[in-house]
Amino acid sequence: MNGKHVSLNMNVRGLKPSATLAINERSNALRREGKTVYKLGLGQSPFPVPECVVNALRHHAHEKDYLPVKGLPELREAVADFHRRKDHINASADGVLIGPGSKELMFLLQLVYYGEILLPTPCWVSYGPQAKIIGRNVHLIHTTYEERWRISSARLRSYLEKENDTFRPRLLILNYPGNPDGESYTMEELQELAETAREYEVILLSDEIYGQLKHRGGHFSVGRFYPEGTIISSGLSKWCGAGGWRLGTFTFPKSLFWLLDAMAAVASETFTSVSAPIQYAAVPAFRGGPEIETYLSHARRILRLTGNRCADILKEAGIRVHSPDGAFYLFIDFEPMRDQLKARGIHDSRELCERLLLDTGVAILPGADFERPADELSARLAYVNFDGAEALAASREISLDQDLLDSFLDVHCPDTLEAMERIAAWVKRSTENA
Amino acid sequence: MNGKHVSLNMNVRGLKPSATLAINERSNALRREGKTVYKLGLGQSPFPVPECVVNALRHHAHEKDYLPVKGLPELREAVADFHRRKDHINASADGVLIGPGSKELMFLLQLVYYGEILLPTPCWVSYGPQAKIIGRNVHLIHTTYEERWRISSARLRSYLEKENDTFRPRLLILNYPGNPDGESYTMEELQELAETAREYEVILLSDEIYGQLKHRGGHFSVGRFYPEGTIISSGLSKWCGAGGWRLGTFTFPKSLFWLLDAMAAVASETFTSVSAPIQYAAVPAFRGGPEIETYLSHARRILRLTGNRCADILKEAGIRVHSPDGAFYLFIDFEPMRDQLKARGIHDSRELCERLLLDTGVAILPGADFERPADELSARLAYVNFDGAEALAASREISLDQDLLDSFLDVHCPDTLEAMERIAAWVKRSTENA
Repeated sequence: MNGKHVSLNMNVRGLKPSATLAINERSNALRREGKTVYKLGLGQSPFPVPECVVNALRHHAHEKDYLPVKGLPELREAVADFHRRKDHINASADGVLIGPGSKELMFLLQLVYYGEILLPTPCWVSYGPQAKIIGRNVHLIHTTYEERWRISSARLRSYLEKENDTFRPRLLILNYPGNPDGESYTMEELQELAETAREYEVILLSDEIYGQLKHRGGHFSVGRFYPEGTIISSGLSKWCGAGGWRLGTFTFPKSLFWLLDAMAAVASETFTSVSAPIQYAAVPAFRGGPEIETYLSHARRILRLTGNRCADILKEAGIRVHSPDGAFYLFIDFEPMRDQLKARGIHDSRELCERLLLDTGVAILPGADFERPADELSARLAYVNFDGAEALAASREISLDQDLLDSFLDVHCPDTLEAMERIAAWVKRSTENA
Repeated sequence: MNGKHVSLNMNVRGLKPSATLAINERSNALRREGKTVYKLGLGQSPFPVPECVVNALRHHAHEKDYLPVKGLPELREAVADFHRRKDHINASADGVLIGPGSKELMFLLQLVYYGEILLPTPCWVSYGPQAKIIGRNVHLIHTTYEERWRISSARLRSYLEKENDTFRPRLLILNYPGNPDGESYTMEELQELAETAREYEVILLSDEIYGQLKHRGGHFSVGRFYPEGTIISSGLSKWCGAGGWRLGTFTFPKSLFWLLDAMAAVASETFTSVSAPIQYAAVPAFRGGPEIETYLSHARRILRLTGNRCADILKEAGIRVHSPDGAFYLFIDFEPMRDQLKARGIHDSRELCERLLLDTGVAILPGADFERPADELSARLAYVNFDGAEALAASREISLDQDLLDSFLDVHCPDTLEAMERIAAWVKRSTENA
């Protein structure tokens, strides 16, 4: 091979592996060198898959047939029922599409949809690179710390009114509880967003994969207020602890079946259908029941305590951060110590995270990976580097009627706390040295 | 949603679900109406997944972590070892990419590669639609019945020499034993193709997913003769009976790691990694051993007998067809009875298959779905509509030293034979009526 060498699609040239996966592989490499690394980069549920779901996989291990492209009928029904039950959405099985992860489904959506994609930031790492791969443009709307990193109806409306082209097809991606910020929306905020979206006929992709991990429960879906224009994204990866299983779901209203059908046509030429044993095993997960609900209650209680304690330690050190509503992330902002960091040669989020990793062993992701301006001193940390199986077992010994004590974390999540203390001490050193 | 309605990427507008999946769903619908349907449309292995592989899935059902994008290290090693052992290719684990089906990997390859794609026809149903989705051009090279539906080195060379642009990046897709034709290549044919490809620096995607289902064994890979320019595609779907599990593999030489890495970057933004329990279960499948080898020997023996008997019945009826080398397909050509079919209003392969389905209940796929000229009277049938578990159990009672008797099929594959007889009788009626 001399004459031609590399011949790649320009959209993928220089494309690096997904930031969250890359930090995971980088952390593992540092560990192999003998370094102590606190892996707060990858956002993976620390909890095991519920036993009834694992058993269902064992039971269906022999299932070998290609399943229908849109998914196993019983699973599509279970997912629709899940959204009816949990989110009070009038979902039906024929509106459900099963994919090998909701990430793949979002890629297919961007591939088949022809229109402008609106992305409030900070946002999940893959939306932007997916658009680049396909050659789509996204319009970023930067939210602020003061807005709790949420897009308001007023911000959305002001963007839409500035544009002349009311009939431009548009799709707005919402994600709540949010990655990377752990924030959710109030019912009123969702109602207002729904009204504006309806008025401008903006389609909503409502990424609610962390819905069941809202720390105090009571997740609301925007689909309650704008059913005809909302696609709800969910999956097994977060609330069911099965990220490695790769099963995501999109649920469409009838008015958007044209998108569902186009995505299914592309699916039939790409992933074909999701792994059959995995789909059978997902049925009891979405059907729910007491075992699943208890599991979720314990998971939420542990995450609530951990997230709040982590936020407290960082706030105390002067870092800007909100106590989280859900999921397992904090989006932290070192803006208050910009001058001191600058004195140490740190000017942007990449330098910030690189230096933090080298100085403290704490691996977190720069805000730039979440589509934030490059010179912002922001970052995401995932507070789930603890043994979730052990923590869950310990929590099960304590009545769900009570909150866990702080001492629970000292015993079961010491590395997470240690990482926070290291960040706090690092900030303190910055401030003192300056 | 009034103002905007459907807003779809033009590349996917009108895209229909994959032909093989569509015929399967159509056949099932006809059955629900009470019709007798012989499902010779979908090419799915009839055999169960080997017990040791199913047990491995049960054993690893609890595995929940996201695996590395390129695949589980043990599996990548097992796949490399499989190709070293079976194909005498100098494969290494770091050249292996695991995907959710080789179909998805082919899509990613077409997405990241920038160059001309050469496609000998008849070819597998998805290569063409994948190119259309991405907006790529493919150059079809139509082979003939007399060529046994194989592309010769001479045909390839004559195409390349006609073009002025020697340095145009090019990728040629080979598939052997072939879908839809069941034909393979001799070692000499592969050697000659390899020489021409090397001379013109054409990259080969060698789709060998049916390699282990060559009916008399002894599969050769073109990678033996052109290692630096050959990507080998394989997976669990065909030889391991696990189509519904969705696991495919690409194996690259070092000189093509730029393609591997670009595909992995896109994978990290789309499917992330293949389902963890499935990857663990695939390790013993690729490692092989006596249980797998015995399973393969029985599967091959049954397919050999069935394929040959089916071909004989159809030849006897005057249809043009070759006895197969491997896989589980026959590509049949009704050209000899064109006039008679025309008299019945049948002018092309779609009309042919539609009429055959309505008249006889036999569901097969038109040649047009395999990129053949629309007016050709060709079609693919998959001779696997029998109970593979039962046939395999029966075969295990008969020493592998002997061939199965024809009577084996009368007992274990009666519907397959009945379908052939129905096609033969239908042709006979055509001829008589004319």
